Amino acid sequence: MTATPPPRGFPVEEFESRTERAQRMMHEYEFDALLLTTEAQVRYFSGFLTQFWQSPTRPWFLVLPASGKPIAVIPTIGVAGMRETWIEDIRSWPSPQPLDDGTSLLAATIRELPRHFGCLGLSLGREGRLRMPLLDYQRLRAELPDLDMVDCAEPLLKLFSVKSSAEIDKIRHVCELASGSFEALPGMIAAGQGEREILRAMRIDLLERGADHTPYIVCASGPDGYGDIIMGPRDRIVENGDILIIDTGTVYDGYFCDFDRNFAFGKASDTARRVYDTVYRSTEAGLEAARPGATTTDVWQAMWSVLEAGGARFNDVGRMGHGLGAQLTEWPSLTSSDNTPLEPGMVITLEPGMDYGDGKLMVHEENIVITDAGAQLLSRRAAPELPVID
Amino acid sequence: MTATPPPRGFPVEEFESRTERAQRMMHEYEFDALLLTTEAQVRYFSGFLTQFWQSPTRPWFLVLPASGKPIAVIPTIGVAGMRETWIEDIRSWPSPQPLDDGTSLLAATIRELPRHFGCLGLSLGREGRLRMPLLDYQRLRAELPDLDMVDCAEPLLKLFSVKSSAEIDKIRHVCELASGSFEALPGMIAAGQGEREILRAMRIDLLERGADHTPYIVCASGPDGYGDIIMGPRDRIVENGDILIIDTGTVYDGYFCDFDRNFAFGKASDTARRVYDTVYRSTEAGLEAARPGATTTDVWQAMWSVLEAGGARFNDVGRMGHGLGAQLTEWPSLTSSDNTPLEPGMVITLEPGMDYGDGKLMVHEENIVITDAGAQLLSRRAAPELPVID
Repeated sequence: MTATPPPRGFPVEEFESRTERAQRMMHEYEFDALLLTTEAQVRYFSGFLTQFWQSPTRPWFLVLPASGKPIAVIPTIGVAGMRETWIEDIRSWPSPQPLDDGTSLLAATIRELPRHFGCLGLSLGREGRLRMPLLDYQRLRAELPDLDMVDCAEPLLKLFSVKSSAEIDKIRHVCELASGSFEALPGMIAAGQGEREILRAMRIDLLERGADHTPYIVCASGPDGYGDIIMGPRDRIVENGDILIIDTGTVYDGYFCDFDRNFAFGKASDTARRVYDTVYRSTEAGLEAARPGATTTDVWQAMWSVLEAGGARFNDVGRMGHGLGAQLTEWPSLTSSDNTPLEPGMVITLEPGMDYGDGKLMVHEENIVITDAGAQLLSRRAAPELPVID
Repeated sequence: MTATPPPRGFPVEEFESRTERAQRMMHEYEFDALLLTTEAQVRYFSGFLTQFWQSPTRPWFLVLPASGKPIAVIPTIGVAGMRETWIEDIRSWPSPQPLDDGTSLLAATIRELPRHFGCLGLSLGREGRLRMPLLDYQRLRAELPDLDMVDCAEPLLKLFSVKSSAEIDKIRHVCELASGSFEALPGMIAAGQGEREILRAMRIDLLERGADHTPYIVCASGPDGYGDIIMGPRDRIVENGDILIIDTGTVYDGYFCDFDRNFAFGKASDTARRVYDTVYRSTEAGLEAARPGATTTDVWQAMWSVLEAGGARFNDVGRMGHGLGAQLTEWPSLTSSDNTPLEPGMVITLEPGMDYGDGKLMVHEENIVITDAGAQLLSRRAAPELPVID
């Protein structure tokens, strides 16, 4: 166990503040209500935190009216749990009920709300998912013929992207746990072990340090480099001369860290050391550039310039960082064209990476929060030189 | 570690057979192609197994033509991993690219395919999810104006519901691991421990036994009973006189178990013992009823009769079991109206539960496979009497 963990959950004031911010946005965008269907959306406004979203069978709905508290329209199996949140108006049906899986109850709930704009907001666009069958959505539209269903994805993503201090404390805590685990790893693993064995050891170490769970921990290894960063662990023994990357999204109280570390075994080639140094310096440039007023593209450009000078040709990852919090990855993306202005309270990853020939990649990642004074690290900075495990 | 784990992955013949079964279904339903977007769908036909679905940012597509292998249309970040599967035709774009996040590439891919029926199948209905922004789906429709987009959810769910022997081996293995962990638990935990501490110990034990990870492990406890089964762990110390339920969906090589166990601490009241016995006998009735030719509703009825005779009034869970495999919960559901005929190879849970007053629940769960000879347990049967931890 490490530092005292921050308190679980949030005070009611946090949900009031989230709701008020959303309602100001709704007024500006002329939404009478928002319909929320995903885990992150429902949890953000209700505090309803459960692993039960692993079951894809049942839809769950939260309706956010133009004023007042959100209304939950949920399967009966969730009512006892939702009563523990700040939500008061909880409507339920005995899902699964395929012929009408909450649709008419949801339509009736929305129909009751006052209408000024004739417009219901849903996450239909950017990074948006409708966590309900499309045919049920079409039934809902048919039941509410005089209401426009309009995309609210971007303003909602913008809302989620600026974290409260209580949210940042949770992300910082899980970053601390994972930093400690990464730092202890060289003493726990050795050449001759399998990728699966190594990740199992780290999963257990993270739990012992106080993490809640690790929905994401992948690795890749190979002689003097690895070729992807999303697939492992594989049935592969790590040998001297290999480079291993481990990337983890570990969770404390519903909030993720998302960063990686690289390790060489036995020795590191000059090329690997040089490329590690290039990507390290690229991250440094990102840390320098990430401040309020700069855009995601400014930060991308600062990181890319260093990589390009170091011989990088392209980056298969598609971006060099992203938002982070209630999900492993959130809006915005650090790309050459994203151009999202950074604001204090945004939590993002810096994730420069380069291909250095023969399909070999070197990817680094750190987690930061944007403050008035610039980027503040949440993860403890990676070693400036490629660590070698003997 | 327990028994030798089954081999990871599947031979190519398994994917050929899955594809052929799907193509026969497609011919029957008159689909020219299927568009698959969810983790379970893409993995079923490609073998592409990654934790990266935790990142909701990018859409992933698999197109299943009327003949030949599936075609992958995926973000570049996944190409190296997809090349390790049996898929040959892999098309990619550098996602995230919000203005056209794979939509035009996907449309071009579908446009190339031969057309006989003018019909593309997607999971739009029952338990169906479209894992892409709805606006992108609308763009796709606009790019393919002469193609009907038709729901294929039910025939696809039916296909997934009958497992191969290799799939059943994986589910049996993870059920064995979790059974061992549940049986060891009374020696590992004691009154005075917190719910979080208990679940952390079990998470670690499952990893040490060889499980890959535990996406789902919840618990609930309270004096002489608990009131929900999806929310915990909570900040609560388990005391003598409590009953604790733990329910886990643990994974080996992409396949889930999903069952629970109940424990009393110090002593068990006569009521708790009696209700445990009722729900145990209800499961026995389910085991007896679950055989080829019987329906999910027959099994539900067999279990419900025992519960009702034992004083049950209703069941908030909404069903008393469900399919299981690549997801924690799959089609079908054991309800009073589901009426799905059981077939050999189906893997399901039996999950009878009852409310016995003051909001207290007693829920049992076992995992079984349907065979010609009837139900075969995959989980090791719960103790016939409520176990008491001293």
